[in-house]
Amino acid sequence: MREDYALRVTIDALFDEALARVKSELKAEGFGVLTEIDVRETFREKLGVDFRPYAILGACNPPLSHRALSHESDAGLVLPCNVIVYQDDAGTTVAIADPTVIARPLGKPALEGVAREAREKLARVAAALRN
Amino acid sequence: MREDYALRVTIDALFDEALARVKSELKAEGFGVLTEIDVRETFREKLGVDFRPYAILGACNPPLSHRALSHESDAGLVLPCNVIVYQDDAGTTVAIADPTVIARPLGKPALEGVAREAREKLARVAAALRN
Repeated sequence: MREDYALRVTIDALFDEALARVKSELKAEGFGVLTEIDVRETFREKLGVDFRPYAILGACNPPLSHRALSHESDAGLVLPCNVIVYQDDAGTTVAIADPTVIARPLGKPALEGVAREAREKLARVAAALRN
Repeated sequence: MREDYALRVTIDALFDEALARVKSELKAEGFGVLTEIDVRETFREKLGVDFRPYAILGACNPPLSHRALSHESDAGLVLPCNVIVYQDDAGTTVAIADPTVIARPLGKPALEGVAREAREKLARVAAALRN
């Protein structure tokens, strides 16, 4: 079985409420949301098409990001850490990109430790969202 | 030799001018800059440390992103496409994440075609920046 590349949670709440919870739990683990893309609104504006509620958050833990970028300039190619939130039949799905998997195409040993630390924090975010 | 995971250009210009050129050439190939992180300012504000001029742009081609996300909800874990721009001794370095490599950890055949198309467009951006 292929290893999963994301930490996944289904939240029994509507999109806006789930999105607020995700941001709050990220903050509790030291991740700021540096970027937020409202995918539905972007597609409506740029393409004139409808899409389900879907957000792409860029989550950044400043000390970990600073370590990553100080070791390796290319780390910015996989930063910040993407967190997707979207509404579906089951409620709202959250998937947090696993930094240890997402950073793998870079093949930089210097990034492995910091990616593992980020993953540990993000796993706590996922666990908190499950409660 | 390991395959490179980015399209790279060194621009003989200072950071601000190079950054403006990158945005302009992305636009010419249909990529909007949906997100922009001023890494130096973020580290100054959050950590009180100095860093070199460094930007992480999130580049999005709406029709391609819509195809990707319609086929595969998880595509948002690797969208938008990161473009990093930073000042170094050689001038300003630009590295555009290669979508065909960055999307690989997802292992989704449905994304291969759209990633290849995005790569072709981004290769033209890199070529234009070299001129």
